Amino acid sequence: MKDFKVIEVKRSIFEDNDADANRLREELKADGTFLLNLMSSPGAGKTTTLKRTISMLKDEMKIGIMEADIDSDVDAQAIIETGVRAIQIHTGGMCHLDADMTRQGIHEFGTKDLDFVVLENVGNLVCPAEFDTGSTKNAMILSVPEGDDKPLKYPLMFSICDVVLINKCDTLCVFDDFSKEAVKERILNLNPNAKVIFVSAKTGEGFDEWADWIRTEVRNYKNS
Amino acid sequence: MKDFKVIEVKRSIFEDNDADANRLREELKADGTFLLNLMSSPGAGKTTTLKRTISMLKDEMKIGIMEADIDSDVDAQAIIETGVRAIQIHTGGMCHLDADMTRQGIHEFGTKDLDFVVLENVGNLVCPAEFDTGSTKNAMILSVPEGDDKPLKYPLMFSICDVVLINKCDTLCVFDDFSKEAVKERILNLNPNAKVIFVSAKTGEGFDEWADWIRTEVRNYKNS
Repeated sequence: MKDFKVIEVKRSIFEDNDADANRLREELKADGTFLLNLMSSPGAGKTTTLKRTISMLKDEMKIGIMEADIDSDVDAQAIIETGVRAIQIHTGGMCHLDADMTRQGIHEFGTKDLDFVVLENVGNLVCPAEFDTGSTKNAMILSVPEGDDKPLKYPLMFSICDVVLINKCDTLCVFDDFSKEAVKERILNLNPNAKVIFVSAKTGEGFDEWADWIRTEVRNYKNS
Repeated sequence: MKDFKVIEVKRSIFEDNDADANRLREELKADGTFLLNLMSSPGAGKTTTLKRTISMLKDEMKIGIMEADIDSDVDAQAIIETGVRAIQIHTGGMCHLDADMTRQGIHEFGTKDLDFVVLENVGNLVCPAEFDTGSTKNAMILSVPEGDDKPLKYPLMFSICDVVLINKCDTLCVFDDFSKEAVKERILNLNPNAKVIFVSAKTGEGFDEWADWIRTEVRNYKNS
């Protein structure tokens, strides 16, 4: 018996995903639920980042996590152990989530009483960038081992994110060709409004700044 | 003036990619050109691996590299510096290559005189696994920082690869929760015939075994 629901979402029937995403944003606003769409490559540390984020914020706000994956439940299981609600979404082989798939997850999950919901998107720097999920804000994680040239190679992803976490900064000692200055400059060239935060989900470095970003965004959203 | 050609490939007009991939394989066989489709997440080390592979094999066989990317030329530039022929393929936002896109690249590149051609696919563990490119063999790189659970989360990719390189083994000192035994067992559970090789493109660890795999495969292909 699992402690979380697993749902299989279907491809959207809507032709116009952008319009549908805007509808979902309005529905979420009416409930006062802030939805963060979290994207990254496979293995950049989305789940570990979420676990530490939850431990810092779960006494201040009601949090829920929607874990999307092609086919496995390992992430939802890890999240459930932190004590917050979670749901596992299976995309049936699809490489991204669109707004209607996100809505199917939201409805099954039941998010009306939640303040802050994170949608952990499929690990992929390409396709998720092309589909507005209806989230309030977009976040991404780039990890140091992936290299500081990734904004050059996946420009759309970096262009659409409100906040970029540079994770695994504790490993800069072995990835000594990674330049924090270069990666930040490349991100800001694509997206001058992006907030770039250097973190380590393993050591906690940078998480005060990240938690403050979430607190401010959620508070402003509720008051707007 | 660039030292390599950049081509923009178009989405296939063929309904049946599998049949088209088989046709391309026959065309390549007639020329005696072995095509390796190399896949991985962004930042797993495809280009660095190729550079070291080229330096070990370029005096034994005629090598060409086809670099596919959404939109940048940084990888082709790095390959050209090794002294082998390279071409940059832009997928126009597409997250994978199919057989017809690969054929467009092959024809523009001109591979009839080459023994060993590597197609560096778009960095993505999802979509490229679903499209047969017409390659002779499939290879993938998983890097240690991505974690040993990736075969559980991206099973199709691991299922279709003839050889899996586990790269960045020089960083196991900082990624001490990565188990070489566990990752190998998970890969072999999905794909009992996969060859798993532990390497470091930075230090050269494991590259003798990898170069031998290529030598044997190319020789057997030419003689078959």
